[in-house]
Amino acid sequence: MKIGIIGYGNLGRGVECAVKKNPDVELAAVFTRRNPEGVKIQTPNVPVVNVSEISNWVGKIDVMILCGGSATDLPKQTPEFAKLFNVVDSFDTHARIPEHFANVDAAAKSSGHVAIISVGWDPGLFSLARVYSNAVLPDGKDYTFWGKGVSQGHSDAIRRIKGVKNAKQYTVPIDAALDAVRSGKNPELTTRQKHLRECYVVLEEDADAAEVEQAIKTMPNYFADYYTVVNFISEEELLTKHGGLAHGGFVIRSGQTGMNDEHKHLIEFNLKLDSNPEFTTGVLLAYARAAYRLNKEGNNGCKTVLDIAPAYLSAQTPEELRAHLL
Amino acid sequence: MKIGIIGYGNLGRGVECAVKKNPDVELAAVFTRRNPEGVKIQTPNVPVVNVSEISNWVGKIDVMILCGGSATDLPKQTPEFAKLFNVVDSFDTHARIPEHFANVDAAAKSSGHVAIISVGWDPGLFSLARVYSNAVLPDGKDYTFWGKGVSQGHSDAIRRIKGVKNAKQYTVPIDAALDAVRSGKNPELTTRQKHLRECYVVLEEDADAAEVEQAIKTMPNYFADYYTVVNFISEEELLTKHGGLAHGGFVIRSGQTGMNDEHKHLIEFNLKLDSNPEFTTGVLLAYARAAYRLNKEGNNGCKTVLDIAPAYLSAQTPEELRAHLL
Repeated sequence: MKIGIIGYGNLGRGVECAVKKNPDVELAAVFTRRNPEGVKIQTPNVPVVNVSEISNWVGKIDVMILCGGSATDLPKQTPEFAKLFNVVDSFDTHARIPEHFANVDAAAKSSGHVAIISVGWDPGLFSLARVYSNAVLPDGKDYTFWGKGVSQGHSDAIRRIKGVKNAKQYTVPIDAALDAVRSGKNPELTTRQKHLRECYVVLEEDADAAEVEQAIKTMPNYFADYYTVVNFISEEELLTKHGGLAHGGFVIRSGQTGMNDEHKHLIEFNLKLDSNPEFTTGVLLAYARAAYRLNKEGNNGCKTVLDIAPAYLSAQTPEELRAHLL
Repeated sequence: MKIGIIGYGNLGRGVECAVKKNPDVELAAVFTRRNPEGVKIQTPNVPVVNVSEISNWVGKIDVMILCGGSATDLPKQTPEFAKLFNVVDSFDTHARIPEHFANVDAAAKSSGHVAIISVGWDPGLFSLARVYSNAVLPDGKDYTFWGKGVSQGHSDAIRRIKGVKNAKQYTVPIDAALDAVRSGKNPELTTRQKHLRECYVVLEEDADAAEVEQAIKTMPNYFADYYTVVNFISEEELLTKHGGLAHGGFVIRSGQTGMNDEHKHLIEFNLKLDSNPEFTTGVLLAYARAAYRLNKEGNNGCKTVLDIAPAYLSAQTPEELRAHLL
């Protein structure tokens, strides 16, 4: 299977790492909006091409992995490139998924390609955990916790405050809330009870720390509903100690069965990831394999992880899977 | 969707509980090898029918849920009834799955029905966890732990020892092994390091406790490779304190990504179940829904959980799933 990467940032670099771990996959080209000569990639002998020349690659690439952002890149790119190729993206703006699905579906159906959207771990593997556990345990409650990991949106919100030079914000699940859920008591948890927000902030030289702290802690939507911890540190410390891309989270369903609801059950799926983008691209590559196979079987249109049978993701044959992993 | 139950034991009773939680499902009839008049079920106004009359129900039942045992019932029943109905079973003898699959596939293909085998939590949800996590994290190691829960096979083995009146055996995962796996160090674990075996034994009046304990602890395959704890208790205590059907377990994949394998990742799926049969039948009912839908779409043949897209399991529409659970 020959794949292409569109967009060369953390995700694009992650796809290169994932290709190394999947012997049935070959990286054919990397596409960028930048001047290709300025883009150094990690894989030898693979061309970097300006995205304006992408139509020359039709027929030479089985699946394109779109590595742009959900805010502005993917809503345009996924429908556009689904006209030319099978595509996989990691669109993660939950509220806009139905609209994105419709746009991509129209493009992929008209061109006969398969497009799989919202692939990664949330949406993605966490969605799978929610759908499977709701289906097998219909009477119950869902809980999703994220972290510990950096939230890009919250870090950006802090950086926009006057007096802030740089910042990183970690979303941290609160152990007491996780323990309450795991006790099987189906607790009602407020926003404040589930996660806390840990901020590492570098101030401008003339900034007032108390004012910045107040501005963070009272920011509506982002911080006002949370217990928020603000730490002021040097830029050097921020870069050396808070440059990691670790993340993770928990999906738990707690429910009951029995003629009188007398039996409790807990289903838990959790992830602990050193590198959010490298793990995400591992998921993207598995679904690229599915897109390729589904298209070869004559399928087309937009799909999500919920529409794909697990066997399509694996490099092993159905016989091997039944013998060794079932 | 109209379902039938074949075999009325713990699993059959579990299906009745599951039907109560799934408003789109109706129980049409329960089939038994016993005299139907002697079988009291929990659902009012549902007929209990001798299995010899099952062919009268063709066209009146959408999916049959087979609730027999894997040792002798299902290898015969699943191919036999797949000739007449869509069927779902919980065949759990891992080593014989390829053979069972081939037999059921031939029967289901010749009659145009869908048969889904080996549905439950292991095989079943644990198989899904293994296949998904292997596909997205190809360089790593799998660990499966079972328990704490009763192993029927090990309990039976103890009961066959001379001097034993009754017994229950719990398989217990060892915390130190789980912790070592969760540390990300990809440990090599021996059988003895992963699980211990906790036995509760009722002696015959004239039995020698030391001899029985020795016979248990040295029994090849079942106990000799494990750290085994033997407790002698009264029959009354066995019945009152060890009659539960709780079970559970853990599937963990630990692996690495990065150009130099510098990033570790952990994927964990775990279950904590008060009632093994009631949870298993929740899974069976969700896959019965999938069998019904797949057959209506024109599919036939034998399938496993690895061949079924998650959306088929849910009572919600694809649009609802994308909007709320993706």
